[in-house]
Amino acid sequence: MQAYEIIKAKRDGRELAPEEIRALVAGFVRGEVPDYQMAAFCMAVFFRGMTDGETSALADAMLRSGEVLDLSDLPGVKVDKHSTGGVGDKVSIALAPIAAACGVVVPMISGRGLGHTGGTLDKLESIPGFQVRLPVQRFRQLLAENGACLIGQTESLAPADGRLYALRDVTATVESIPLIASSIMSKKLAEGIDALVLDVKVGSGAFMKRREDAERLARTLAAIGHVMGKRVVAILTSMDQPLGHAVGNALELREAVELLRGAGPPDLRQVTFELAAETAILAGAVPSREAAHALVQTVVWNGRAFEKLCQIVRSQGGDPDALSDPARLPAGKGTLEVRAPAHGVVQAIDAEAIGLAAVALGAGRARVEDAVDHGVGIVVHRKLGDWVDEGESLCTVHFGDRGRESPQAVAGRVLNAYRIGSRPLPEQPLIIARIE
Amino acid sequence: MQAYEIIKAKRDGRELAPEEIRALVAGFVRGEVPDYQMAAFCMAVFFRGMTDGETSALADAMLRSGEVLDLSDLPGVKVDKHSTGGVGDKVSIALAPIAAACGVVVPMISGRGLGHTGGTLDKLESIPGFQVRLPVQRFRQLLAENGACLIGQTESLAPADGRLYALRDVTATVESIPLIASSIMSKKLAEGIDALVLDVKVGSGAFMKRREDAERLARTLAAIGHVMGKRVVAILTSMDQPLGHAVGNALELREAVELLRGAGPPDLRQVTFELAAETAILAGAVPSREAAHALVQTVVWNGRAFEKLCQIVRSQGGDPDALSDPARLPAGKGTLEVRAPAHGVVQAIDAEAIGLAAVALGAGRARVEDAVDHGVGIVVHRKLGDWVDEGESLCTVHFGDRGRESPQAVAGRVLNAYRIGSRPLPEQPLIIARIE
Repeated sequence: MQAYEIIKAKRDGRELAPEEIRALVAGFVRGEVPDYQMAAFCMAVFFRGMTDGETSALADAMLRSGEVLDLSDLPGVKVDKHSTGGVGDKVSIALAPIAAACGVVVPMISGRGLGHTGGTLDKLESIPGFQVRLPVQRFRQLLAENGACLIGQTESLAPADGRLYALRDVTATVESIPLIASSIMSKKLAEGIDALVLDVKVGSGAFMKRREDAERLARTLAAIGHVMGKRVVAILTSMDQPLGHAVGNALELREAVELLRGAGPPDLRQVTFELAAETAILAGAVPSREAAHALVQTVVWNGRAFEKLCQIVRSQGGDPDALSDPARLPAGKGTLEVRAPAHGVVQAIDAEAIGLAAVALGAGRARVEDAVDHGVGIVVHRKLGDWVDEGESLCTVHFGDRGRESPQAVAGRVLNAYRIGSRPLPEQPLIIARIE
Repeated sequence: MQAYEIIKAKRDGRELAPEEIRALVAGFVRGEVPDYQMAAFCMAVFFRGMTDGETSALADAMLRSGEVLDLSDLPGVKVDKHSTGGVGDKVSIALAPIAAACGVVVPMISGRGLGHTGGTLDKLESIPGFQVRLPVQRFRQLLAENGACLIGQTESLAPADGRLYALRDVTATVESIPLIASSIMSKKLAEGIDALVLDVKVGSGAFMKRREDAERLARTLAAIGHVMGKRVVAILTSMDQPLGHAVGNALELREAVELLRGAGPPDLRQVTFELAAETAILAGAVPSREAAHALVQTVVWNGRAFEKLCQIVRSQGGDPDALSDPARLPAGKGTLEVRAPAHGVVQAIDAEAIGLAAVALGAGRARVEDAVDHGVGIVVHRKLGDWVDEGESLCTVHFGDRGRESPQAVAGRVLNAYRIGSRPLPEQPLIIARIE
């Protein structure tokens, strides 16, 4: 009974051989290793961890459980960007056209919102007509024509990961760095990319609340990439408050468009430009880091990045005019202001609570099968370190008529997410570390 | 999702409330908590352990998953003896009639051999005609008439334990003291007993190889008993070599009978008498420990204990003449001596390896559905600290024609279980500790 021996070895802290991990995953996919053995294995991994070698073998085994795209016939260096998930994280929507405008080929396969974090696919679908499910042939064609295409995960890519994730989700084994890292990398490496930029979020709105956990995850992700022969850079970025102002699909899309038109909130700009520059560096599109940053600023300044987004949207069936005319985007039915109960300085914002408040409005899903209301969300006006007068608006709640909670209840959640005090708050770095 | 929350709480080291454990077990029995969640829970328990309160709640929940015998209408104090399992452990067969002859009521529900340890039921079934499956009504009647009845576990007693054990067996979660202890106690307390003597084996032939583990198990078992309002005594006894000489069903039965007739190996006598005296003390049948030992020796010396075994055998459909006439018992087809390769002192015997060698002969089961050959086994002549000359027999292998390995292969296993050296071996205590 090989699965038993593998579970026992991991339970007792022995390092597993790549063949053992391969046999376990292959048995799981074929249905020979039942869910209960895999659940026991995952819990043993939760406690014992995995070496980089084991984690890479697990990612590789899951990767090989399905189709692996071969984009080698497309000219150019294929680079994707992946975020571990945050609140108000609309970076991908701006980054993909920026990177493509810089000459990088961006085959971007994104996810939907689940839990407190939003999903790029849901944000894109707030554009009328936008299609995130395309046949692989059309995906290739658009990559060749536009240099970027943004689609959803298909069942044929790393199916073992999908099954394993569903099992982990109900057995309290999600929060394990080797399991998280192998899950991410199995899906990303199935995309046929040459290089990957990882945005590892850390803070109150991230899955990793502590810097040391985020760093371990980043190092593990990079290590898997290197074992698999890919260029991987992981950037640790702060998620101690929502990124930018908007939380919610159409609201976030508008903010990403503002960024591409040269405006937008400075924190969103800093993170997006930093990550976009990394894609240009990994793609070999520039001679230096300084040149990468200059190129990114140029393609935004001269409008090429915004044009690229319009081109992507048009190619994927969406209405590009909705990018210029906000009236064409879904909107809420009304708004409610969340007002400061006293004056002072914003000391802390529980970004996860803000994310969950947006979910309660209908911007995200409580369960996979839930429908999303693209118009609703929360706009954050006062951020960490900001002064606020009593009665001033901290946030605006954009509510619809399909929320799971009343606008007042959501406003209460938002207010509870704020801590206001008297201390001035030292500025915290947004880009925390770069791990190769 | 309550099961999820319970798994997560245990994973994170939080003490579970009795209601949470009850809900988990009840959900598992009803099929609402799937095997994969229970497997993850068991692995979390493996790493995090359980408090005595949690372990008792788990035992209680499994106990309540089925029928609980009510023997309160039978006069006398009902005391069972349970062993955690060893090699050559035929104590129950001698103890039940001794204790009954001392006036204790012994409702003994035993198990079959699995793994390297033998089972009392298999040993009893080497007596032609002996029935270990009796209706509950007949069990009660024989307890009233004979003071002892030895039967097998029924599906109606603690069914949750049976299902959970099967799951643990394939998910590498057997070796967890709270899970072992709650499993034992749920079955024992479903028997309607007033008190319980536990023989917790420690050493090379026991499930617990290390004294500290055996002590922890003994304390946990006693703690559960006390929480449940039962008198429980746990005796730690050495299992660093087979108990007595015989390993194998009919061979062991004969050795137990020899003991009841005043002969038998001294180590078997010491353990059996010690445990039998404990049952008499717990039953209040004697004024003192000394009186208990005197009474036990008396009922063996005057033949009352042997008569009691004959009575039990007759009542349960067995041939009592087989107890006096070994020719009526199953026997092997031939014997093979395992000879010492050099002279010296026996330094160590891997009792688990001896047990597995007997299983390979057909004395036990590799899988639950395997048939048992009651006549085969191993007779151990040289024990720890014994001097042996080169070429002298260490053991005799009694083989049949249905073994899973050749007699020669089994003899090789037996030889490998011995370590012979030159050091004299200090005598080790057989009764290691008494835990109440």
